[in-house]
Amino acid sequence: MTNTQVTLVQLDNYGPWTVTPSPRREVDLQTMQSRLYADLSQAFGMRDGYVFFTRFDNMIAVSNGLDLEDHARVQESIRNRYPVTVSLSIGTGASPADALVEATAALQAQGSAQDADRREALLGQPIDEETRTDDDVQIAHFDVVDATGTYTDELDAYSSFVHIEQGYAALMQHMHDAHDSLSFFVGGDNIIAVCPDLTPADYEEAIEHVRDTAGVDIRVGVGHGVSPHDAGMGAKHALEDAREHETEVEVVPEP
Amino acid sequence: MTNTQVTLVQLDNYGPWTVTPSPRREVDLQTMQSRLYADLSQAFGMRDGYVFFTRFDNMIAVSNGLDLEDHARVQESIRNRYPVTVSLSIGTGASPADALVEATAALQAQGSAQDADRREALLGQPIDEETRTDDDVQIAHFDVVDATGTYTDELDAYSSFVHIEQGYAALMQHMHDAHDSLSFFVGGDNIIAVCPDLTPADYEEAIEHVRDTAGVDIRVGVGHGVSPHDAGMGAKHALEDAREHETEVEVVPEP
Amino acid sequence: MTNTQVTLVQLDNYGPWTVTPSPRREVDLQTMQSRLYADLSQAFGMRDGYVFFTRFDNMIAVSNGLDLEDHARVQESIRNRYPVTVSLSIGTGASPADALVEATAALQAQGSAQDADRREALLGQPIDEETRTDDDVQIAHFDVVDATGTYTDELDAYSSFVHIEQGYAALMQHMHDAHDSLSFFVGGDNIIAVCPDLTPADYEEAIEHVRDTAGVDIRVGVGHGVSPHDAGMGAKHALEDAREHETEVEVVPEP
Amino acid sequence: MTNTQVTLVQLDNYGPWTVTPSPRREVDLQTMQSRLYADLSQAFGMRDGYVFFTRFDNMIAVSNGLDLEDHARVQESIRNRYPVTVSLSIGTGASPADALVEATAALQAQGSAQDADRREALLGQPIDEETRTDDDVQIAHFDVVDATGTYTDELDAYSSFVHIEQGYAALMQHMHDAHDSLSFFVGGDNIIAVCPDLTPADYEEAIEHVRDTAGVDIRVGVGHGVSPHDAGMGAKHALEDAREHETEVEVVPEP
Repeated sequence: MTNTQVTLVQLDNYGPWTVTPSPRREVDLQTMQSRLYADLSQAFGMRDGYVFFTRFDNMIAVSNGLDLEDHARVQESIRNRYPVTVSLSIGTGASPADALVEATAALQAQGSAQDADRREALLGQPIDEETRTDDDVQIAHFDVVDATGTYTDELDAYSSFVHIEQGYAALMQHMHDAHDSLSFFVGGDNIIAVCPDLTPADYEEAIEHVRDTAGVDIRVGVGHGVSPHDAGMGAKHALEDAREHETEVEVVPEP
Repeated sequence: MTNTQVTLVQLDNYGPWTVTPSPRREVDLQTMQSRLYADLSQAFGMRDGYVFFTRFDNMIAVSNGLDLEDHARVQESIRNRYPVTVSLSIGTGASPADALVEATAALQAQGSAQDADRREALLGQPIDEETRTDDDVQIAHFDVVDATGTYTDELDAYSSFVHIEQGYAALMQHMHDAHDSLSFFVGGDNIIAVCPDLTPADYEEAIEHVRDTAGVDIRVGVGHGVSPHDAGMGAKHALEDAREHETEVEVVPEP
Repeated sequence: MTNTQVTLVQLDNYGPWTVTPSPRREVDLQTMQSRLYADLSQAFGMRDGYVFFTRFDNMIAVSNGLDLEDHARVQESIRNRYPVTVSLSIGTGASPADALVEATAALQAQGSAQDADRREALLGQPIDEETRTDDDVQIAHFDVVDATGTYTDELDAYSSFVHIEQGYAALMQHMHDAHDSLSFFVGGDNIIAVCPDLTPADYEEAIEHVRDTAGVDIRVGVGHGVSPHDAGMGAKHALEDAREHETEVEVVPEP
Repeated sequence: MTNTQVTLVQLDNYGPWTVTPSPRREVDLQTMQSRLYADLSQAFGMRDGYVFFTRFDNMIAVSNGLDLEDHARVQESIRNRYPVTVSLSIGTGASPADALVEATAALQAQGSAQDADRREALLGQPIDEETRTDDDVQIAHFDVVDATGTYTDELDAYSSFVHIEQGYAALMQHMHDAHDSLSFFVGGDNIIAVCPDLTPADYEEAIEHVRDTAGVDIRVGVGHGVSPHDAGMGAKHALEDAREHETEVEVVPEP
């Protein structure tokens, strides 16, 4: 059974900061946000975790393998190098969606995202090192079938973006509502979902749903592992198989 | 009348690179993409331009104020510092959507996004410095009314994200189809749109459309300028006014 | 005659910040400093300027081509993205050394580098755009003759470093005392000097001095230009000529 | 007894790359080098290691705590995000200087720093996790007594730099020749040395040597630890004590 550890990364009191004392240059905000995300991606990644940029002021990490000390170090490193600070809240469970509900609730209980007095909260309890197993994390890596031939080389760049975005919107909502999964756009035509124990039939159903509601053809590779990196790398290889075999769903056999 | 200059930034043959010789670590791809975007944001921003990350492998810049030499320098700087290269294609016109159609078509005519032989194309013609005017660029900066109170502090982080994403999806498609505009999520609950000469009534109509179709309340500040930065900073100040006055649309008077 | 514009970049009250409330992690300080330098290098570089890291808390830029507005934008961008701020002070003159004396004195007159109340000073007057000429900047690019064969592949890494460092120390002091020049180590075995109107004989004399006092053989390419980039690129090509022709001094003819 | 693990980080065939097909823009090289260093600093730092920029094309890390897999991951991450690759060679021993001799020799045996066929070597053997002890690493953190009052606020910025540089040159050579230590300038007026088991009298002797030969007054804090971070943080606190007590040498008692 999966046991996903998610970490909610929330910038402290960020909205007010962006307009104090007057609105800050947009290009600087964009640069700061995307570099902060890049740094978190490397920091969690050094321990085999994944981070998704989500809204940039609220990022979601899959953090199986990072303990409290690792989290504290990330928090300290941001404080030492950025003009903003971050709060971190950890949730765990068989359902990624529920784990995030738990993490969010704990942080909300400490104060608002725009509470000037709530800084650098560090909440929740990571999974004990001894109880970690090879099927703790299930990752599904989706992409669009022939996105380059169908969209990028055919439509104008914004229309391509709209189509891919619509497929993504349909997928993310369905995977959340029907399958307790958290799905994230990661660039190009790629979507990575963190899932509970889903079956190939579940993925087939989701793919059909996206085809029916958004008219976008997608396929998926699914991997498992003790860490997001292990599961995600399995999913990538499975997706390569799906491309080669022109199948819709490829799953790395559970270890 | 607006005269928007857009630049399509396309990573050359990026998809194949990400899986050659085998899939690369996701955290490294995320870091590389977001830092490349951050660098473009600073480089265009030093000349008062804006860049939006869009799909990361296809980014869209509003580049009024950058000439061909500036574009070539950006291209060279990426080549010198990254393992990938970029092609740049410039389009111009009263309609941002049409300008991007022009830029995309020119690049597609040079070869596929996954053509190993098409590298560092530099296409299109910037607006002559002498013909630039104070109403060349119109920028609309939208945000969600009380996003923190309605979503961030109330729902779990993913549900907040889904709601904001849905409002964004409804807005981006409508602004494109009905108003020839290019809208981009820029983090938090913020959307920036590059528009032709739209009226306050147009914006009111768009806001109503988003409320009706996605159930999300948004408001907007609108600015004009010779450059994206000037227009965008006007829009930010107008949005501050809208927050303070609790109005839906605030427009900086045309110069 | 040269007319060099230098900018002293001083982090405001940095020393105390690094130990408040207690000493900060060294790796974070190293990361923050070197990225701040990298950003300045790009920001000045987009306008054809050069920046040298020097002591990191006090950096020296050759800023011919950047006006006050450009300086203010750099200052603002740092404030928006880093936990520290910078003061900038501009000096100009035929002698780079004197220009820096002027820039330093103006900043010292505003308060100490560790004065908590002196933040974001912006001092001095750039060269008027109309008076800029093709011989404003003279750049000399030195390297060590066969550094790889003599040191890197032969000695242990620290001994190589010590030898190159000693050559550098001898050169930087001599070029300053005898030739009013500012010399900077830029990595590998490369030293870049910003010079007044020096003759080939001056460079030969300096090279001989380094051979005599530090036992290190160096050579140099010299370029001129309206900007640091133009002069520096000329110097690089001249140095390539010197490598190929096995000469000690190669000078790009003045325009 | 100390047991220092050092890693030589050498960019593969870097010199030729910087001038192929023609010399690359200096600001881009500076940016790329300093960001690569910053990334290594974070990557090693996440595991409590230290990296020094040294010559940028040859960097030296103190890597106690990083195993071969950690090194491989750093190497892979650089390959995925930069236009250059790195070779890594590990050496260990009671003497930091000897450990680096060992690491350098192993790398040199694989080919020249400018050998196009030698890429991404990964050499040497880290210290076994079980044999690590609390006195494996000794770090000495030096700074200049009243650098701000004596130099920064009094002399022009280059003359300050020259004085500090001279103190550093005297110290680094003496600590290497007399005490088997590796000393590095880390910005401002700070020098960090990685040392074998030295006594307070050794440090007093070194400080006197620098005063006699370079006329620069320095002081030092010394720490010990299982990792560079632990030893270095101890040294920083000891240096704070030395500042407060106006002593020349403060040593954290061995654990």
